This record gives sequence, C-alpha cells and structure tokens, in this order.
Amino acid sequence: MKLNRFAICAGLLWLLTTGLSLQAGGMVEQWGVFQIILPGPTNGNPFVDTTLSARFTQGDMSVDATGFYDGDGIYCVRFMPDRLGEWHYTTASSVANLDHISGDFTVVKPAAENHGPVRVANTYHFAYADGTPYKELGTTCYAWVNQDEALQEQTLKTLAAAPFNKLRMCVFPKRYDWNTNEPPMYPFAGIPTTNWDFTRFNPEFFRHFEQRIADLQKLGIEADIILFHPYDEGHWGFDRMPASADDRYLRYVLARFSAYRNVWWSLANEYDFMKKKTEADFVRFGEIISTNDPSHHLISIHNGQKMFNHTLPWITHVSVQNGSAVEDAGRAELFRDIYRKPVVFDEVKYEGNLPKRWGNLSAEELVFRFWEGTVAGTYVGHGETYLSPDNIIWWSKGGVLKGQSPARLAFLKQVLADSPAEGIDPIDKWQDPTIAGQPGKYYLIYFGKQQPATWEFKLPKPPLGKGAPLTNGVAFTVEILDTWNMTVTPVPGKFKVKKGDYSYADEAGRSIELPGKPYVALRIKRVED
Amino acid sequence: MKLNRFAICAGLLWLLTTGLSLQAGGMVEQWGVFQIILPGPTNGNPFVDTTLSARFTQGDMSVDATGFYDGDGIYCVRFMPDRLGEWHYTTASSVANLDHISGDFTVVKPAAENHGPVRVANTYHFAYADGTPYKELGTTCYAWVNQDEALQEQTLKTLAAAPFNKLRMCVFPKRYDWNTNEPPMYPFAGIPTTNWDFTRFNPEFFRHFEQRIADLQKLGIEADIILFHPYDEGHWGFDRMPASADDRYLRYVLARFSAYRNVWWSLANEYDFMKKKTEADFVRFGEIISTNDPSHHLISIHNGQKMFNHTLPWITHVSVQNGSAVEDAGRAELFRDIYRKPVVFDEVKYEGNLPKRWGNLSAEELVFRFWEGTVAGTYVGHGETYLSPDNIIWWSKGGVLKGQSPARLAFLKQVLADSPAEGIDPIDKWQDPTIAGQPGKYYLIYFGKQQPATWEFKLPKPPLGKGAPLTNGVAFTVEILDTWNMTVTPVPGKFKVKKGDYSYADEAGRSIELPGKPYVALRIKRVED
Repeated sequence: MKLNRFAICAGLLWLLTTGLSLQAGGMVEQWGVFQIILPGPTNGNPFVDTTLSARFTQGDMSVDATGFYDGDGIYCVRFMPDRLGEWHYTTASSVANLDHISGDFTVVKPAAENHGPVRVANTYHFAYADGTPYKELGTTCYAWVNQDEALQEQTLKTLAAAPFNKLRMCVFPKRYDWNTNEPPMYPFAGIPTTNWDFTRFNPEFFRHFEQRIADLQKLGIEADIILFHPYDEGHWGFDRMPASADDRYLRYVLARFSAYRNVWWSLANEYDFMKKKTEADFVRFGEIISTNDPSHHLISIHNGQKMFNHTLPWITHVSVQNGSAVEDAGRAELFRDIYRKPVVFDEVKYEGNLPKRWGNLSAEELVFRFWEGTVAGTYVGHGETYLSPDNIIWWSKGGVLKGQSPARLAFLKQVLADSPAEGIDPIDKWQDPTIAGQPGKYYLIYFGKQQPATWEFKLPKPPLGKGAPLTNGVAFTVEILDTWNMTVTPVPGKFKVKKGDYSYADEAGRSIELPGKPYVALRIKRVED
Repeated sequence: MKLNRFAICAGLLWLLTTGLSLQAGGMVEQWGVFQIILPGPTNGNPFVDTTLSARFTQGDMSVDATGFYDGDGIYCVRFMPDRLGEWHYTTASSVANLDHISGDFTVVKPAAENHGPVRVANTYHFAYADGTPYKELGTTCYAWVNQDEALQEQTLKTLAAAPFNKLRMCVFPKRYDWNTNEPPMYPFAGIPTTNWDFTRFNPEFFRHFEQRIADLQKLGIEADIILFHPYDEGHWGFDRMPASADDRYLRYVLARFSAYRNVWWSLANEYDFMKKKTEADFVRFGEIISTNDPSHHLISIHNGQKMFNHTLPWITHVSVQNGSAVEDAGRAELFRDIYRKPVVFDEVKYEGNLPKRWGNLSAEELVFRFWEGTVAGTYVGHGETYLSPDNIIWWSKGGVLKGQSPARLAFLKQVLADSPAEGIDPIDKWQDPTIAGQPGKYYLIYFGKQQPATWEFKLPKPPLGKGAPLTNGVAFTVEILDTWNMTVTPVPGKFKVKKGDYSYADEAGRSIELPGKPYVALRIKRVED
C-alpha cells in the first residue's frame, strides 16, 4: 500500500516539533533526514514484538534502514539519502499493516551549510561528504543533555560563540565527583534508579536527545555520541546491563540517530574503566554498529589507561586519551604511524583548577598541546574543569566557558582553515617532528616552549613522491604566528631556496628574527608562479 | 624399523663437525639439538620429491618436526626437546626406507650456560625458558655470515668481548652502499648471479650458517635471523622470488634452524622497502613460520618507514625501526601501550660517521637513546657505521668495533643485570616518563641531557595493584649513576618516605645533590626489612 494520509500528517507534526528537514511533498535535501512515520499496534511490547525496516532504492542501489517504535502507536523509519534524485522505498514488518508500504521521494541539493557527514580523508584527516575539509576541533560536555533545560540552552549559547566543531557527549547520565544530580529523564521505562525495564525505551528521552543532535547540527557541530561509559558504577546500572539489553539499546539508538548527518559513534569513554565489560564486548558493539548503520558514520572508542586495538577494521579513527602524548609532536605522530588512521586526542588533561592531575592544566599548557598535536598531523580535544560553587563544570555539564584557551583555539581554527585541504602532515619526523604541512607547498613550524631568537630559513627536502617538487629558486613567504597573543606578523620579502643535501635553504643563507618568546610558530607558503 | 647403525654413525660424524650437543647413546640435553640422520634417495630432486617428518612423543605430549635433505643422500630431522626424560620418535616419509623409523632417547639436564630459548615474559619483557631473565641488548652485523672466513672469525672474537646478547643477521647476501662484494657461497643451486634453481638448496651454505648460529650460541648470543631483506634489488633476485620459492625456502630454513635454541625469526629487515612484496606476503610468511616451528621461537618483523601491524597474534614482540622514538622515553613507551608486547627498537640510527643521517650519531647520542629506551621499559639496538677504507663496517660486515658506545652499553648491561627480574616498567608515564622500575621496590630515574644540580627525593605513588605497597617509613638507598663515565656513587644514608597526594617524598624533605652533568641516572632501591 502507499503511505497513507495519517502517516504523512503525523510525520509533519513530528517534524514541526523537531525542526528536521523533511519537506512536504516528499522532498528532502541530500544528507537530510527522510522519515516514514506509520501508525501501528500498541498492544504487547511494541519495542520488541514488532519488527520494521525499509529498503530505500535508487536504480541498482539499495540501502536498508531499521525502524523503531516511538511510543503512542507511532512507528518510524529514518534514512539519510546520500544521492540526489528520485528514491523509492518499501517497508518490511512483522505486522501486516506496517508491511509492504511503499512510496517515492525526491532528494534535492543541500542547503549551503549542509556538507554531509564527516568521513575519513587522506588517511589521516577528515572531510565532509561533499569534499569540504573538516578540521576537527572538539570539546567535551559529557552529561550536558542530562542537565536541566535552562543549562542546556546556556550550553548551546556558549557553543554558538565558541570555536568547537565537535562535542563529546554521553547518552546515559553521569555520576562522578561534582556530578551527583539525577537527570530530568531516563532512557528506559521502569522505576528509578535501579528497577528498569530494559525492554522498553523512554521515547521522550530519545526525542529530546535528537533535538540536541539537531541543535548542534545547526551550529555546525558534530555530535560524538558516547554510547557507554563507566560513570555510573551501578547507581543506575546502565554500565552493567545484560548483553541482550546492551545490544537492543545499540540497535534502538542506531535506528533513531543514524539518519542525522552530524552523528559520530564513540563506543565508550574510558572503555577499560567499565569493570563489568570486556574488550570482547566492545568488539561486539563495534560490529553491531558498523554493520547496522546505513549512513556509515565514524566509529571510535576512547580509553582510560589501556589502549584499545584500533587496527580493527570497523574503527574509522583513533580516539585516544593520553595525558602526555601531545606534550611532544614526536610522541603524537607515532599514533599515525602505527594506526594509519586519523588520530584524535580526545582527552589530554583539561584546562582548570581541580585538585586532580588530569584537571589543572594552565591555558598556556593546553594551547601548547593543541599546537604540538597539530604539527604532528593529529587532532586534539579541549576540556575545561574550573571548580564552581554550583558544581557546574564545562567538562561535564556545559554552561559557560571560563578559561583562556578557547580564544586561542579560535585563532588555531583560523590557521587550520587557511591550511591545505589535504591536511597537515609531519614532513621530516625522524629529524624534527615540529615541521609539518604539505612538502614543497606549505609549512607550519612550531617552537613550543623554546624561545629562539632566530630561525635559519631551511626546509626539509620533500620526501620521495610526496608534495610539490622543489627546485632552486622556488620562493616562499613567511609569517610569524604568536599562538598565545594571537597575532600574525608577515616577514618582509620572499625567500628563494637552494638545494642542499637534505634541505632547501634560503639561497642567500638568511635567517628570520623571532620574538624570543614561547609559543611562536612560522607559517611558510610557496609563492605561486 | 629401528634407527640403523649407518644413521647413527652419520649423525655422529656430522655432529663432530658442527659441535652440536647430541650425545652418543641417545642422550641430549634439554633444549639441545636431537637429530635423526638417515640415508635416502639421491635421484630426482630430493629437496622437493621426498617428504620427511618425525613425531616426537613423551607420554600424552607429541610434537611434529619436519625433516630436510642435506645433500649427498643424507636426510635429517631435528628436534629441540623442552622436557626432561624419555622421548620416543617415529618418522613419516613418502619414501619407504625413511618411513616408520622409530627410536628412543633421553633428555638430560642442560649444562649450566644453557637456559633454553628466549620467550616473552611479563607482557613487555623476555626470559629464557628456565625462567632466567633475558635483558635484551642487541647489535647488527647484517651480512657477516656472507663475508670471508677470516672476517667472520674476527667478528666472533669481537662479539666475545662485547656486551651484546643478540645479533641481527641476514640469511641472504647483501648488496648496498659499501656492500658490493659477492658472498663466498649462495643459498641455491644454479648459476650466479641470477640463473638460480630455487627448487634446489645449497646444503653447504646452510650448514655454514648453522655453524654460525652455534658459534653465537656458545657466546650466549641470540641469532635474530632476518629471512628477507631488500638489499638486493634484483642483483641476485632473492628479494623477488616467486611465492612458491619463498615458501619452500622458509620451510627449509624452519626444518634446519628451528632446533637451535638461540634462534629468533625476523621476517624481514625494512619489509616495506621490498618493492616486489606486499604486506599480505609477510602475513603469509608469519603464518608459515608460526604454524611450522615446533620450537615456537620469537617472531618479529622490522620496518623501514611504514609500521607493520604488530597486533597480529603470531608476532611475539615489536621490532621497530624509528629514527627518533628513543630520543624521548615518552615516545618509546607508547609502543608498549599500543601493542602490549615487548618492544625492541632494532634500529634507532647508528653510531658512526657516514654521510647519511641514519649513520652518524655520536656515541653519547646512541648511549642516551639506549637509556631513554630503557626507562621506557623497552629495548634498544646498537649499530656502528664508521667509514673504513676497506669498506668493512660493523653494521653490515662485522669485524672490529671502533666506537665509544659499546663500553657504556656494557655498563648499562650491568645495571640491567642488577635490575628486577620482572623488568623495568614506566611508573608514572603521564607525569614523568623518565621514572621507571618496579613501583615500591626499585626505581631508575634518568635525567638524559638535563643537568640538574639537585633532585628532590620523591617517588610516585605506586599505581593501584602494581608493585609493592608503600607506607610511611619505608626506607630507600640511592646511587648516582654516571652513564657516560660509567661510575656508581652511593648517596650516604637512607631515605624514609612520607605519603603525599600523588607521591612518597623523603620524610625530612631532603634533596640529593647531583653532579650537574648530562647522562646521569639515579638507582633507588628499597631497603628490605
């Protein structure tokens, strides 16, 4: 049967409340959310008794998406179309009046700010599906969606003015030092805090979570959704559900969230601190996610002290916690060498004043770590942990930013936006891991805590077959970046190079005067003929 | 049939010439080489026409070993027994008079210097099969067995006086800068240099190679046998044999060498520089070795610029080339975190004066790198590349050592011999990666190129559940090690600790005066009650 009037009406009503992009008349933008909304049975337990999916086809290509029960007799299948043009769908269900429903819709060009989902690009980097480079610059508000509404709105307002384009956030509520409040809602039916019915979800909780995904999308922020975490320790027991409940939860989340283009899957925060889970559990989770996500979002897993095996094929990028790796570009880049995937240091200690070693970096130190990670060809994550009488700390609950690093990270973001589309890569790592860029074209050299007074103009010979060839006479411009004071100072004139054994130096042997302060970088660009 | 008189005679004759440890009367020491030597057909191509193996049994336990053709109508099966007592064997062959030959022999206690093969111990370290710790300290003479006999003898003499307990060495000859001489023998029959019969081995070549393995064994040196390497580039073509020849070669080498207890398998040097091989080829090689080595020797693979996937289960330890990782303990220890296996930096640039960036480290720099690697809980490899008019450079051909690092590595060897049997591990790596040892018991703190005048006595709190617990009043002694000048200076008195937030400091808040020179370490030992 064809999609009936009721279904379309329900769908539109739903859309009005969530702000999604399905158009009336069966039109949706590329990488928008197309939804099939259908009335169905309410008897028994619809979350487990009724199966529903849909096959979406365009020519020879077909994609299957699993549906979900949204409560109140409403069933839904969501789909993120990645091709323009006419699409067709047909549902399949264990319930006759949800089965074999078919329809057509048109996928139109995306709005200007919609570049599609983020994918891996050039082995170590990211780009949106339309090819636009995505230079990752993330922060964390682990439990922000589980705070009161006013605080959530304040967090969104703060994010709108901040430089971040990714946010790490948990589905489940968080219980930890400075985090002892109950959330407004819970993901499961049952009696808080421990007598849950894991076979019945709370659709209101998930609709609210989706609203927050959509809110972030409007701000151009990727939602790095943390599916499991240890900050529970049995208080609610979401960290120790039976395997059947874990898997059902993952499939429900997949059905609901995967059509949102700004979703990333983070299997866990500090997976190894979850005492009731094994590494094999997380391998199973990864396989469930990777084989059941029709949109193929990025998938990662974040560690406490024990590195996960990030060589597994379903892991798209390396999400690392390490308290010292980004103190040194030479450390950070090893993760690239070893994994051959993009590396995101999602926890490197935080700017703040907590009485914890992981939570009292100075802003200078955190910004320094971002720059070391950047010239290592990796990406670094921000977090802020300033004590507050109300226990509202950005790292976990959101609210307002109080630190000095975000302004400097906005400066770094400008530098990244101006950097090569291919990404920043180490260029001569076994000699000097602080020289990065694209060989022959663009160099970023970071002096960190060193305070040199001069720098001899000398570029490493491009590695065989990489970057643009250099020959005698090729000219470069130089800018001095003060990464802390956020200034860009062009060095007058041009530097023409002359070949040496392992390098191309200025043909006149010139050096560049530097301010003799810490946290200085050089940006060197080839002058195009 | 029972082993006939001819076979025993031939075996004894063979043994007399190679110095192996099979005793007359069917006795062999534990981890010695037991051999079955049998006359057999010489017609056709015995290397491929005749199959031969033997099953060795003791009670319920059985081990299969593949035999090989040694030329001149002699067939052989070798076996390294790892249990004392009575053993039985029965052969199996495609040739009737090699088939179903059985016999008995007795495995007796090993000689004092025989500790068995080296195995992985405590995840990140090594020990001999009898439990004796093995603190790896290796060097390289890649092509020493393919030089003239006088030079080989000189190399052995040098090794006898040097501190090294592992030698990296290639089977195939080497062609490279400073290495253009032809070897005295070749591994295959046929016409040098390119018209080989890859189906016929040259037994003399392999008997000679085995002699060298045995020579190293007598010196207490593990033979890290490099099975493939790129330093050929078609000159002989051993780097580009067909897959069938590669695999036949590996099986022949396995049959001949695996009964020698001091063998390690290194699938390749700089595997990624072998242009005609893929990573899948090396995975196949690793699987052939690991499933066909009855003695289960250590297996590794060494990279050029591209890290291999050392998480694969048949890789026992990580063999790395990296030109900068051991400049910093914080870099080196990441390989442990990621792979959870012992890490051996088998190439970190060499002490020497070559006009190559990889071959002109100062001795100070190389020794510094060993110490950084040591406090990272990893192992570092030596190599020496001093130019010589005769082109004899230790790194490749052996000969004599000319550098200043070996004496300092002998000092390091003494320090390692005195260190805990469990190995040296990083203790507080996200705060200070230069503090290592076993928490609560033994600390090695290395200041590297820093020249501090004092050190405040303060030990990191032992990580939860690791090492010996610390309580107020536990006492320590301190020694100052000058790792370059090779001196050990005890600090008078004892230091009793007092608990702090993250540390145990001297209860009187004392500091230790240091010499204010580079390359100083502290050795701190708990005073046993």
